[in-house]
Amino acid sequence: MRYDERTEMMVLDDDDSWRLLESAEVVRIAVAVPGDVEIFPVNTVVDEHTLVFRTAEGTKLAALAMSGRVTVEADGQTPGGQEAWSVVVKGDAELLESFPEIYRAEELPLRCSHPGHKGRWVRVRPRDIQGRQFTQGDTRHAAG
Amino acid sequence: MRYDERTEMMVLDDDDSWRLLESAEVVRIAVAVPGDVEIFPVNTVVDEHTLVFRTAEGTKLAALAMSGRVTVEADGQTPGGQEAWSVVVKGDAELLESFPEIYRAEELPLRCSHPGHKGRWVRVRPRDIQGRQFTQGDTRHAAG
Repeated sequence: MRYDERTEMMVLDDDDSWRLLESAEVVRIAVAVPGDVEIFPVNTVVDEHTLVFRTAEGTKLAALAMSGRVTVEADGQTPGGQEAWSVVVKGDAELLESFPEIYRAEELPLRCSHPGHKGRWVRVRPRDIQGRQFTQGDTRHAAG
Repeated sequence: MRYDERTEMMVLDDDDSWRLLESAEVVRIAVAVPGDVEIFPVNTVVDEHTLVFRTAEGTKLAALAMSGRVTVEADGQTPGGQEAWSVVVKGDAELLESFPEIYRAEELPLRCSHPGHKGRWVRVRPRDIQGRQFTQGDTRHAAG
Protein backbone atom coordinates (compact mmCIF):
# COMPACT_ATOMS: atom_id res chain seq x y z
CA MET A 1 0.00 0.00 0.00
CA ARG A 2 1.34 3.42 -0.87
CA TYR A 3 -0.05 6.92 -0.78
CA ASP A 4 -0.75 8.64 -4.10
CA GLU A 5 -0.48 12.38 -3.57
CA ARG A 6 -2.22 13.28 -6.81
CA THR A 7 -5.44 11.39 -6.06
CA GLU A 8 -5.07 11.62 -2.25
CA MET A 9 -5.75 7.89 -2.01
CA MET A 10 -3.91 4.80 -0.89
CA VAL A 11 -2.96 2.53 -3.79
CA LEU A 12 -3.52 -1.09 -2.78
CA ASP A 13 -1.24 -3.91 -3.75
CA ASP A 14 -2.70 -6.72 -5.83
CA ASP A 15 -3.19 -9.16 -2.94
CA ASP A 16 -5.20 -6.60 -0.98
CA SER A 17 -7.24 -5.80 -4.09
CA TRP A 18 -8.09 -9.48 -4.65
CA ARG A 19 -8.99 -9.89 -0.99
CA LEU A 20 -11.44 -6.99 -1.25
CA LEU A 21 -12.88 -8.35 -4.49
CA GLU A 22 -13.48 -11.65 -2.71
CA SER A 23 -15.36 -9.82 0.02
CA ALA A 24 -17.70 -8.04 -2.41
CA GLU A 25 -21.21 -9.43 -2.63
CA VAL A 26 -21.90 -7.66 -5.90
CA VAL A 27 -19.54 -6.43 -8.58
CA ARG A 28 -20.36 -4.56 -11.78
CA ILE A 29 -19.30 -5.73 -15.21
CA ALA A 30 -19.02 -3.01 -17.83
CA VAL A 31 -18.77 -3.74 -21.52
CA ALA A 32 -18.38 -1.31 -24.39
CA VAL A 33 -20.94 -1.81 -27.13
CA PRO A 34 -21.09 0.38 -30.22
CA GLY A 35 -21.77 3.93 -29.05
CA ASP A 36 -22.51 2.90 -25.51
CA VAL A 37 -21.47 1.11 -22.34
CA GLU A 38 -23.56 -1.59 -20.68
CA ILE A 39 -23.20 -2.25 -16.95
CA PHE A 40 -24.52 -5.32 -15.15
CA PRO A 41 -24.39 -6.01 -11.43
CA VAL A 42 -23.49 -9.66 -10.89
CA ASN A 43 -22.40 -12.04 -8.16
CA THR A 44 -18.89 -13.27 -8.81
CA VAL A 45 -16.45 -15.60 -7.14
CA VAL A 46 -12.69 -15.25 -7.21
CA ASP A 47 -10.86 -18.34 -8.47
CA GLU A 48 -7.06 -18.16 -8.60
CA HIS A 49 -6.92 -14.50 -9.56
CA THR A 50 -9.72 -14.76 -12.08
CA LEU A 51 -13.39 -13.83 -11.62
CA VAL A 52 -16.15 -16.32 -12.39
CA PHE A 53 -19.84 -15.59 -12.74
CA ARG A 54 -22.99 -17.03 -14.26
CA THR A 55 -25.31 -15.46 -16.73
CA ALA A 56 -28.40 -16.24 -18.73
CA GLU A 57 -28.49 -16.46 -22.47
CA GLY A 58 -29.57 -13.04 -23.72
CA THR A 59 -28.57 -9.42 -23.78
CA LYS A 60 -25.80 -9.54 -21.23
CA LEU A 61 -24.17 -12.53 -22.72
CA ALA A 62 -24.52 -11.12 -26.22
CA ALA A 63 -22.80 -7.91 -25.17
CA LEU A 64 -20.00 -9.81 -23.49
CA ALA A 65 -19.50 -12.12 -26.40
CA MET A 66 -19.35 -9.19 -28.81
CA SER A 67 -16.56 -7.54 -26.93
CA GLY A 68 -14.52 -9.99 -24.85
CA ARG A 69 -12.96 -7.03 -23.04
CA VAL A 70 -14.66 -6.15 -19.80
CA THR A 71 -14.09 -3.87 -16.86
CA VAL A 72 -15.14 -5.11 -13.44
CA GLU A 73 -15.65 -2.78 -10.51
CA ALA A 74 -16.37 -3.37 -6.85
CA ASP A 75 -16.45 -0.91 -3.99
CA GLY A 76 -17.32 -0.89 -0.34
CA GLN A 77 -16.32 0.17 3.10
CA THR A 78 -13.97 -1.44 5.56
CA PRO A 79 -15.66 -2.81 8.70
CA GLY A 80 -16.48 0.23 10.80
CA GLY A 81 -16.97 2.35 7.71
CA GLN A 82 -13.99 4.65 8.16
CA GLU A 83 -12.29 3.64 4.95
CA ALA A 84 -13.85 3.36 1.50
CA TRP A 85 -12.26 1.20 -1.17
CA SER A 86 -12.72 0.42 -4.82
CA VAL A 87 -11.12 -2.15 -7.09
CA VAL A 88 -11.20 -2.11 -10.89
CA VAL A 89 -10.18 -5.12 -12.94
CA LYS A 90 -9.70 -4.91 -16.69
CA GLY A 91 -9.70 -8.23 -18.40
CA ASP A 92 -10.95 -10.58 -21.02
CA ALA A 93 -14.17 -12.50 -20.60
CA GLU A 94 -14.57 -15.98 -21.97
CA LEU A 95 -17.53 -18.30 -21.98
CA LEU A 96 -16.66 -21.64 -20.45
CA GLU A 97 -17.33 -24.28 -23.06
CA SER A 98 -15.41 -27.40 -22.06
CA PHE A 99 -16.76 -29.88 -19.52
CA PRO A 100 -13.67 -29.73 -17.24
CA GLU A 101 -13.94 -25.94 -17.10
CA ILE A 102 -17.65 -26.06 -16.35
CA TYR A 103 -17.26 -28.80 -13.73
CA ARG A 104 -14.60 -26.73 -12.02
CA ALA A 105 -16.83 -23.65 -12.05
CA GLU A 106 -19.75 -25.65 -10.63
CA GLU A 107 -17.62 -26.44 -7.58
CA LEU A 108 -16.90 -22.79 -6.79
CA PRO A 109 -18.76 -21.22 -3.85
CA LEU A 110 -20.67 -18.74 -5.99
CA ARG A 111 -23.61 -17.08 -4.31
CA CYS A 112 -26.28 -16.10 -6.82
CA SER A 113 -28.88 -13.76 -5.40
CA HIS A 114 -31.07 -13.61 -8.48
CA PRO A 115 -33.19 -16.75 -8.79
CA GLY A 116 -33.43 -16.71 -12.60
CA HIS A 117 -31.95 -19.50 -14.66
CA LYS A 118 -28.34 -18.77 -15.56
CA GLY A 119 -27.09 -21.48 -17.79
CA ARG A 120 -23.71 -20.12 -18.83
CA TRP A 121 -20.46 -19.62 -16.96
CA VAL A 122 -18.07 -16.78 -17.72
CA ARG A 123 -14.50 -16.36 -16.53
CA VAL A 124 -12.72 -13.00 -16.57
CA ARG A 125 -8.94 -13.22 -16.87
CA PRO A 126 -7.41 -9.97 -15.65
CA ARG A 127 -4.96 -7.92 -17.60
CA ASP A 128 -4.83 -5.28 -14.90
CA ILE A 129 -6.09 -4.78 -11.35
CA GLN A 130 -6.13 -1.49 -9.49
CA GLY A 131 -7.29 -0.95 -5.93
CA ARG A 132 -7.73 2.32 -4.08
CA GLN A 133 -8.64 3.09 -0.51
CA PHE A 134 -9.22 6.34 1.35
CA THR A 135 -10.42 7.63 4.67
CA GLN A 136 -13.96 8.84 4.42
CA GLY A 137 -14.98 12.26 5.56
CA ASP A 138 -18.34 13.81 4.90
CA THR A 139 -16.90 16.78 3.07
CA ARG A 140 -20.02 18.42 1.80
CA HIS A 141 -19.61 20.52 -1.27
CA ALA A 142 -18.36 23.54 0.66
CA ALA A 143 -15.18 21.68 1.56
CA GLY A 144 -14.31 20.71 -2.00
CA MET B 1 -43.79 -1.80 -11.87
CA ARG B 2 -44.33 -4.82 -14.07
CA TYR B 3 -42.94 -8.33 -14.13
CA ASP B 4 -40.62 -9.29 -16.99
CA GLU B 5 -40.86 -13.01 -17.56
CA ARG B 6 -37.72 -13.24 -19.65
CA THR B 7 -35.41 -11.78 -16.99
CA GLU B 8 -37.58 -12.87 -14.03
CA MET B 9 -37.33 -9.34 -12.61
CA MET B 10 -39.66 -6.49 -11.86
CA VAL B 11 -39.21 -3.56 -14.25
CA LEU B 12 -39.43 -0.32 -12.27
CA ASP B 13 -41.12 2.80 -13.54
CA ASP B 14 -38.99 5.92 -13.90
CA ASP B 15 -40.15 7.58 -10.67
CA ASP B 16 -39.20 4.51 -8.64
CA SER B 17 -35.86 4.33 -10.44
CA TRP B 18 -35.07 7.98 -9.63
CA ARG B 19 -36.10 7.46 -6.02
CA LEU B 20 -33.67 4.55 -5.72
CA LEU B 21 -30.90 6.54 -7.40
CA GLU B 22 -31.47 9.30 -4.86
CA SER B 23 -31.07 6.76 -2.06
CA ALA B 24 -27.73 5.46 -3.38
CA GLU B 25 -24.66 6.64 -1.52
CA VAL B 26 -22.34 5.65 -4.32
CA VAL B 27 -23.01 5.23 -8.03
CA ARG B 28 -20.61 4.10 -10.74
CA ILE B 29 -19.92 6.13 -13.86
CA ALA B 30 -18.69 4.12 -16.84
CA VAL B 31 -17.14 5.72 -19.89
CA ALA B 32 -15.92 4.06 -23.06
CA VAL B 33 -12.40 5.04 -23.98
CA PRO B 34 -10.61 3.63 -27.02
CA GLY B 35 -10.36 -0.13 -26.54
CA ASP B 36 -11.52 -0.02 -22.96
CA VAL B 37 -14.10 1.03 -20.38
CA GLU B 38 -13.27 3.13 -17.34
CA ILE B 39 -15.45 2.92 -14.23
CA PHE B 40 -15.39 5.38 -11.36
CA PRO B 41 -17.35 5.18 -8.14
CA VAL B 42 -18.64 8.66 -7.28
CA ASN B 43 -21.06 10.38 -4.96
CA THR B 44 -23.88 11.96 -6.93
CA VAL B 45 -26.96 13.98 -6.19
CA VAL B 46 -30.18 13.90 -8.18
CA ASP B 47 -31.35 17.31 -9.41
CA GLU B 48 -34.57 17.40 -11.41
CA HIS B 49 -33.99 14.07 -13.14
CA THR B 50 -30.33 14.75 -13.82
CA LEU B 51 -27.31 13.51 -11.86
CA VAL B 52 -24.70 15.92 -10.57
CA PHE B 53 -21.27 15.08 -9.23
CA ARG B 54 -17.87 16.62 -8.61
CA THR B 55 -14.56 15.55 -9.93
CA ALA B 56 -10.94 16.59 -9.92
CA GLU B 57 -9.03 17.69 -12.94
CA GLY B 58 -7.25 14.60 -14.26
CA THR B 59 -7.84 11.16 -15.64
CA LYS B 60 -11.50 10.82 -14.83
CA LEU B 61 -12.39 14.20 -16.17
CA ALA B 62 -10.28 13.65 -19.27
CA ALA B 63 -12.09 10.38 -19.99
CA LEU B 64 -15.48 11.99 -19.53
CA ALA B 65 -14.64 14.97 -21.66
CA MET B 66 -13.39 12.71 -24.44
CA SER B 67 -16.65 10.84 -24.61
CA GLY B 68 -19.60 12.84 -23.29
CA ARG B 69 -21.65 9.65 -23.22
CA VAL B 70 -21.71 7.91 -19.89
CA THR B 71 -23.51 5.03 -18.24
CA VAL B 72 -24.35 5.37 -14.57
CA GLU B 73 -25.20 2.38 -12.39
CA ALA B 74 -26.41 2.05 -8.84
CA ASP B 75 -27.58 -1.01 -6.98
CA GLY B 76 -28.62 -1.95 -3.51
CA GLN B 77 -31.11 -3.73 -1.35
CA THR B 78 -34.45 -2.59 -0.06
CA PRO B 79 -34.62 -2.11 3.73
CA GLY B 80 -34.73 -5.60 5.18
CA GLY B 81 -32.67 -6.98 2.32
CA GLN B 82 -35.34 -9.11 0.70
CA GLU B 83 -35.30 -7.28 -2.60
CA ALA B 84 -32.27 -6.30 -4.65
CA TRP B 85 -32.48 -3.47 -7.16
CA SER B 86 -30.34 -1.87 -9.83
CA VAL B 87 -30.78 1.25 -11.90
CA VAL B 88 -28.84 2.09 -15.06
CA VAL B 89 -28.92 5.57 -16.59
CA LYS B 90 -27.48 6.27 -20.00
CA GLY B 91 -26.86 9.90 -20.68
CA ASP B 92 -24.62 12.71 -21.71
CA ALA B 93 -22.16 14.27 -19.32
CA GLU B 94 -21.36 17.94 -19.46
CA LEU B 95 -18.90 20.02 -17.47
CA LEU B 96 -20.62 22.93 -15.83
CA GLU B 97 -18.92 26.08 -17.08
CA SER B 98 -21.27 29.00 -16.45
CA PHE B 99 -21.51 30.73 -13.08
CA PRO B 100 -25.29 30.24 -12.72
CA GLU B 101 -24.91 26.52 -13.35
CA ILE B 102 -22.04 26.22 -10.88
CA TYR B 103 -23.85 28.29 -8.22
CA ARG B 104 -26.85 26.04 -8.58
CA ALA B 105 -24.71 22.92 -8.23
CA GLU B 106 -23.00 24.34 -5.13
CA GLU B 107 -26.40 24.52 -3.44
CA LEU B 108 -27.17 20.84 -3.98
CA PRO B 109 -26.91 18.52 -0.98
CA LEU B 110 -24.04 16.49 -2.40
CA ARG B 111 -22.21 14.30 0.05
CA CYS B 112 -18.61 13.77 -0.98
CA SER B 113 -16.90 11.00 0.95
CA HIS B 114 -13.46 11.43 -0.61
CA PRO B 115 -11.66 14.42 0.90
CA GLY B 116 -9.57 15.26 -2.18
CA HIS B 117 -10.02 18.54 -3.98
CA LYS B 118 -12.68 18.29 -6.70
CA GLY B 119 -12.85 21.52 -8.54
CA ARG B 120 -15.21 20.65 -11.36
CA TRP B 121 -18.93 19.93 -11.53
CA VAL B 122 -20.44 17.51 -14.01
CA ARG B 123 -24.11 17.06 -14.86
CA VAL B 124 -25.42 13.91 -16.54
CA ARG B 125 -28.57 14.44 -18.60
CA PRO B 126 -30.30 11.09 -19.06
CA ARG B 127 -31.35 9.70 -22.40
CA ASP B 128 -32.61 6.52 -20.81
CA ILE B 129 -33.23 5.13 -17.33
CA GLN B 130 -33.91 1.48 -16.52
CA GLY B 131 -34.61 0.06 -13.10
CA ARG B 132 -34.91 -3.59 -12.09
CA GLN B 133 -35.85 -5.23 -8.83
CA PHE B 134 -36.04 -8.85 -7.75
CA THR B 135 -36.55 -10.96 -4.67
CA GLN B 136 -33.26 -12.30 -3.42
CA GLY B 137 -32.73 -15.94 -2.75
CA ASP B 138 -29.41 -17.51 -2.03
CA THR B 139 -29.57 -19.88 -4.96
CA ARG B 140 -26.13 -21.42 -4.89
CA HIS B 141 -24.89 -22.75 -8.16
CA ALA B 142 -26.71 -26.04 -7.77
CA ALA B 143 -30.02 -24.25 -8.17
CA GLY B 144 -29.04 -22.44 -11.38
